[in-house]
Amino acid sequence: DQPLLLIAGPCVLQNEAISDQIAEVLVQLNQRPDVNVVFKASFDKANRTSVGADRGPGLDEGLAMLDKIGRSSGLPTTTDVHLPQQASTVAEVCDLLQIPAFLARQTDLITASAETGKPLNVKKGQFMAPEDMQYVVQKARAAGEGGVLLCERGTFFGYGRLVNDMQALPIMRSLGVPVVFDATHSVQRPGSGQGSTGGNRQMVEPLARAAVAIGIDAVFFETHPRPETSPSDGANMVPLAQFAALVDRLLQIRHTIQSIGQLNGVSHAS
Amino acid sequence: DQPLLLIAGPCVLQNEAISDQIAEVLVQLNQRPDVNVVFKASFDKANRTSVGADRGPGLDEGLAMLDKIGRSSGLPTTTDVHLPQQASTVAEVCDLLQIPAFLARQTDLITASAETGKPLNVKKGQFMAPEDMQYVVQKARAAGEGGVLLCERGTFFGYGRLVNDMQALPIMRSLGVPVVFDATHSVQRPGSGQGSTGGNRQMVEPLARAAVAIGIDAVFFETHPRPETSPSDGANMVPLAQFAALVDRLLQIRHTIQSIGQLNGVSHAS
Amino acid sequence: DQPLLLIAGPCVLQNEAISDQIAEVLVQLNQRPDVNVVFKASFDKANRTSVGADRGPGLDEGLAMLDKIGRSSGLPTTTDVHLPQQASTVAEVCDLLQIPAFLARQTDLITASAETGKPLNVKKGQFMAPEDMQYVVQKARAAGEGGVLLCERGTFFGYGRLVNDMQALPIMRSLGVPVVFDATHSVQRPGSGQGSTGGNRQMVEPLARAAVAIGIDAVFFETHPRPETSPSDGANMVPLAQFAALVDRLLQIRHTIQSIGQLNGVSHAS
Amino acid sequence: DQPLLLIAGPCVLQNEAISDQIAEVLVQLNQRPDVNVVFKASFDKANRTSVGADRGPGLDEGLAMLDKIGRSSGLPTTTDVHLPQQASTVAEVCDLLQIPAFLARQTDLITASAETGKPLNVKKGQFMAPEDMQYVVQKARAAGEGGVLLCERGTFFGYGRLVNDMQALPIMRSLGVPVVFDATHSVQRPGSGQGSTGGNRQMVEPLARAAVAIGIDAVFFETHPRPETSPSDGANMVPLAQFAALVDRLLQIRHTIQSIGQLNGVSHAS
Repeated sequence: DQPLLLIAGPCVLQNEAISDQIAEVLVQLNQRPDVNVVFKASFDKANRTSVGADRGPGLDEGLAMLDKIGRSSGLPTTTDVHLPQQASTVAEVCDLLQIPAFLARQTDLITASAETGKPLNVKKGQFMAPEDMQYVVQKARAAGEGGVLLCERGTFFGYGRLVNDMQALPIMRSLGVPVVFDATHSVQRPGSGQGSTGGNRQMVEPLARAAVAIGIDAVFFETHPRPETSPSDGANMVPLAQFAALVDRLLQIRHTIQSIGQLNGVSHAS
Repeated sequence: DQPLLLIAGPCVLQNEAISDQIAEVLVQLNQRPDVNVVFKASFDKANRTSVGADRGPGLDEGLAMLDKIGRSSGLPTTTDVHLPQQASTVAEVCDLLQIPAFLARQTDLITASAETGKPLNVKKGQFMAPEDMQYVVQKARAAGEGGVLLCERGTFFGYGRLVNDMQALPIMRSLGVPVVFDATHSVQRPGSGQGSTGGNRQMVEPLARAAVAIGIDAVFFETHPRPETSPSDGANMVPLAQFAALVDRLLQIRHTIQSIGQLNGVSHAS
Repeated sequence: DQPLLLIAGPCVLQNEAISDQIAEVLVQLNQRPDVNVVFKASFDKANRTSVGADRGPGLDEGLAMLDKIGRSSGLPTTTDVHLPQQASTVAEVCDLLQIPAFLARQTDLITASAETGKPLNVKKGQFMAPEDMQYVVQKARAAGEGGVLLCERGTFFGYGRLVNDMQALPIMRSLGVPVVFDATHSVQRPGSGQGSTGGNRQMVEPLARAAVAIGIDAVFFETHPRPETSPSDGANMVPLAQFAALVDRLLQIRHTIQSIGQLNGVSHAS
Repeated sequence: DQPLLLIAGPCVLQNEAISDQIAEVLVQLNQRPDVNVVFKASFDKANRTSVGADRGPGLDEGLAMLDKIGRSSGLPTTTDVHLPQQASTVAEVCDLLQIPAFLARQTDLITASAETGKPLNVKKGQFMAPEDMQYVVQKARAAGEGGVLLCERGTFFGYGRLVNDMQALPIMRSLGVPVVFDATHSVQRPGSGQGSTGGNRQMVEPLARAAVAIGIDAVFFETHPRPETSPSDGANMVPLAQFAALVDRLLQIRHTIQSIGQLNGVSHAS
């Protein structure tokens, strides 16, 4: 049985102490035979609601930090790419390139990222049907052999709300790619008029359980020793102290799913 | 651990042979200690898309059929009530009264149904927020002591589509009532311009797995020996021959959930 | 050029003084050659959010009030029908029967109302595509010759919000029926968790202007001498003192539309 | 009274003959005192659904074409910018910089574009509330003095559909900026599974009439002598032969609006 791919980390790179603290928990989790962990952090939050919001250390410093984390922890790393010209530099350090949901339709970004030969984790745009991610997969495959994962992170559902259409998981899986469930950003509440995006951490586990029960390949969480101090997405993050237990619960569901037939009924979309 | 409440049956009452065939499978399932089965069928499809569509046997004949099925199978029964004046008659035969989603806001229907003293299974309107079902619960509790269940059956998501907001399950559960997941009507495709409502049976199991993994109390399926011959909802129904195996898979997920803590993180909504 | 049909009144019947005050303004407006006014008020608010909310005088008293208003003002009247058995009684007094949006799919209600021979004003369900209103028209035409109008009053757009898809106006018009724009209920904010439905009166005129510019046949407003004292929908109502001027502005737009070709490009839907 | 700003042109730059043909009609329209015309065409369609779709002449050739059109016609020009590093080059040629809807939240693109000192026309993201465009306006104003316009081009409304929330027009206007209505892209039907985006030209005029009646400042159309031969958005475009008459009808509505008070009731949002 395939191990669960677990993409996790702080939202944005802050400082070495926090990253090391998180990496330590992830390294331990990675020793389980049923999990493969990838460390994720952003070097730049390029689409913050407000112009004054904290954006992170930037490309050069951020990649240096990711490189160090990867070497010291032994974990593969991933980060999000915002411009075509960033792709090759990021690919020198990271093992997986993440494409932000708002940019899922930007052809040059997909192409430049795929041309690095690294696999892509493309988030489904909040404005896209899961079926339409097939064209994104085609764009990536036309440019590189590194492979593609598709990620569900919520779909627009009226102003200020996202919804996870769980039917999107089997639909995207039927495109022949592994599917990631982003349990952190799915519970965002895009801030209508407040100047920042809110969230609801209590919904992280119910949604992650649901996604794992359907039979996804990977799950993405942001975690932090003190979420309330994170510069971004603090309201959605899993406190680090609770993270390993949460993952363990999800893995128990996954083992049950694997024993009863993971793909039963989920491999074909209408 | 609480057994799963399984509400199941053909969509609409057709004839004794079909009902008996379905009841036989349900009686067998009911012998499991982890399941309590309720037989469900409609006497009238009161809101068909088209005026010429088949509606069922009507109140008197339908209740006679349900009464006979209940007596011969020993299963409790339920059906949907469309008008206030039907409630007391239905309550003479059925053990649970179902309120259709379109009618979830009709005060007199809720009141008359609750006044029978029987429990109500109220479907969340496709046009309602889960939080707003609290007022429906209050209406029912003001009129009777029989208890209320709330049922998720899909929310409007653009013309011709429904989406299950899985966050609705813990939100409605936090109102202090058991929550039902309707795995059959959730996969409807309300027919834009075709004169009838379509569906996608392949999504029934993924969604039901997701709902069970979140920790619901009850699940509702329509099943039929030959779904393609059903006068209504055939495209969404589970073929009877596959039904027991499907329920068994869901129960395995439920047992895992129960062992890891069914309510962990799902009991409070924002 | 066809006069604009103007359906207006207080939301719910309160007392004679208020109704008379409103009727007086409407009678005056009705003297314009470019307007035909119908007085509208509800005898029962049958789907209030909360069980304790005020519902109105009920069928008998309400119809007596409507009858009196109709006779004294000379205006035709309309009210909403909630149950099939109310239709014939309502039709004895009212000239137009209104079907609530939540009930737009209830076949027996449409049939009983159409059988009275009176025209129906059916509100599009918040959960329905405009194209699908064709089946409602068919249900009405199968039962009576009185004619049908279709009314746009907002479509579900995430929890707590409605949106007016203005494309629905030409689409419903292409079904061969006059189209009404309900400028009052379109600006409702269904109350997520507050126990009542809010609204935004300032959007009434912009939306009404837009609808008139597209080329509708009728417009529906609730108006009240002191909206803040109305038992229902006060937040959406047009203050009576501003009502005639608002209608005059809309009629100026309508005259322009009529001079440039009312139906140009709007009569066919895809 | 303020003239209507009319942004128009072919979708994407094709060849000189077509651009000249369109410019000729626009130059003539621009002689009206009640209209100011800006010529719009894209040098790159950077987010086509499919990787094989035609993208346009690219930055250098495209700007050369726009420069030539601007000089020969005397019309100001605009085009869309996709990457921060394109902004200053585009600003050397164009008078107005357009920010694509998918990119409305990309801070660096807004900043770089605003830093050119040219005004920006930012399309509201299909995934954004109109209120939240205030933060986009702040980003632009923090970087440059050229001014900002906000553009409504449709909001996600279920897979494969957009809706124009006409309430967004007064809401965005209340942010203190001119508002553009994009009558062409609003009628797109994002292609669910077909590999390209469809549209419905017949809805262009109804929606444009509605927007003008509400009291917007600018309207954006794509027009083409033979829309069916356009490499992109052909299904939504106004045939060039019908364009001047359409604009004339809209201007008649606008004159009426101006005479009755353009801003009456539309300047404040809830």
